[in-house]
Amino acid sequence: MPMIRVEMFPGRTPDQKRDFAKAVTESFVSICGGTPQSVQIVFQDVDRGDWATAGKLASDAAPAPAASPAAKSA
Amino acid sequence: MPMIRVEMFPGRTPDQKRDFAKAVTESFVSICGGTPQSVQIVFQDVDRGDWATAGKLASDAAPAPAASPAAKSA
Amino acid sequence: MPMIRVEMFPGRTPDQKRDFAKAVTESFVSICGGTPQSVQIVFQDVDRGDWATAGKLASDAAPAPAASPAAKSA
Amino acid sequence: MPMIRVEMFPGRTPDQKRDFAKAVTESFVSICGGTPQSVQIVFQDVDRGDWATAGKLASDAAPAPAASPAAKSA
Amino acid sequence: MPMIRVEMFPGRTPDQKRDFAKAVTESFVSICGGTPQSVQIVFQDVDRGDWATAGKLASDAAPAPAASPAAKSA
Amino acid sequence: MPMIRVEMFPGRTPDQKRDFAKAVTESFVSICGGTPQSVQIVFQDVDRGDWATAGKLASDAAPAPAASPAAKSA
Repeated sequence: MPMIRVEMFPGRTPDQKRDFAKAVTESFVSICGGTPQSVQIVFQDVDRGDWATAGKLASDAAPAPAASPAAKSA
Repeated sequence: MPMIRVEMFPGRTPDQKRDFAKAVTESFVSICGGTPQSVQIVFQDVDRGDWATAGKLASDAAPAPAASPAAKSA
Repeated sequence: MPMIRVEMFPGRTPDQKRDFAKAVTESFVSICGGTPQSVQIVFQDVDRGDWATAGKLASDAAPAPAASPAAKSA
Repeated sequence: MPMIRVEMFPGRTPDQKRDFAKAVTESFVSICGGTPQSVQIVFQDVDRGDWATAGKLASDAAPAPAASPAAKSA
Repeated sequence: MPMIRVEMFPGRTPDQKRDFAKAVTESFVSICGGTPQSVQIVFQDVDRGDWATAGKLASDAAPAPAASPAAKSA
Repeated sequence: MPMIRVEMFPGRTPDQKRDFAKAVTESFVSICGGTPQSVQIVFQDVDRGDWATAGKLASDAAPAPAASPAAKSA
C-alpha cells in the first residue's frame, strides 16, 4: 500500500519516470505516512490514438505543446 | 493527460489528500512536462478487508505501523 | 470483451446509468462489432474529495456547473 | 470527469476508435450532463493471449465471430 | 509484483475473500514463480446498479443464481 | 462478474498464463460461487522500467530472483 497507476502519453524518458517515481514516493511518505517500501507505482504509456478528449482522439488533434516534455522549459 | 490513480487504505484526511495531490501535480509538471490543468488524480480507499498481501487480508494482519499516518513522526 | 469502466462524480441516477449503459453498448456493437452480450460496463462513483485536477480537490473548487446533471438543460 | 477506460481485443481501426469515442462522449453529455471537454476516454488493446473467459485464454478458443468487427455486417 | 484486482458483486464474506486471496496467491507462486510476499490482491465490490451487461444494469435483471454464493452447492 | 486484472512483469509463458487463469477461475467458482463462464481475467505485462517500488524503477534494481519464474524450483 499504496498502489499508484500513472497513465500518460508515451515519450517520457527512463530518467523522467525514475525522478517522478522518486518524488511521488517521497511525497506519499512525508504527507500520508507509510514506508517507501510500501509504495508501488506503475506507469502505463497510452498512445495518442488511444486517448480521446472531448470525443476527439489526441492523435487527430494539433500537437498539444503543454503535454510535451518540451513544455518544461516553457 | 496524465490520469493518476491512488489506491490506499482509508484514513487519510482531506488535508493529506489535498497536499499529496498538489505535490504529485507539481512533480509531474516539473519532471515530465505538461500543464497542471492536464493532471487528473483519483483517490480510492480500499478497506483492509479488501487488500491481501502474501495471501493474507490486511484486516487479519497485526496493524502495520508503517502504513499508518502516525508513522510520519517515526 | 470489451470491459468498460466509467469513473465519475456521484449523483447520476439509476436512470442515467441505465440509459448511458444502453447507449454505449449499442454504439460499441454498431461501430466496433461484437454482440451486446460481450459488453460489460462498470460504473464507479468518485467523491469530489477524491478527485483532483490541476492539483486541487474538486471538493475545494467552486461547483463546476458543467459537470452536474443540471448542465443537461444548459 | 468522467474518465472512461475501454479494454478490448486488438483489431479496431483508428476510424472505429474515433467514431466510438465521439459516440460515447455525445451519449455521456446528453444523458449524464457535463461538457464534452470533461470526457476522457482511454482505449487499451488486450491480446487474446492475455484475456481468459471461463478459465480459457481467448487465443486458445475457436475464433469468436461475435467479437470480430466482421460481426457488424451479421 | 503482481498486482491483482478483483471486481465483483457485493456479498462475498470475509471468509470467502480470505480463502480466495490465499488460493490465488498460492496459484501464482506455484505456476508463475515469485514469493507470496510479492502478491498483492485488491477486492472491489461493485453494486448491481453499477454493472451492466448487454446494455442492462444487473440490478434490473432477474437475479442471476449462478453469480450468487449459493451456487457453490449447486 | 467477476473481472480480474493481473499486472505483472513480462516473461510468463502462454502456458503459465493458461494454467494460472484456469486455477484462478476454479478457485473463484469453488470459493465465491458463480459459473466459470462469468469469470473474466485480463493479464497486463508491465515492463520493469515502468514499475517502481520504494521510489526505484525495477529496471534499476538488482534482478529480484523471487519474482522470476525460475523461483519456482527454489
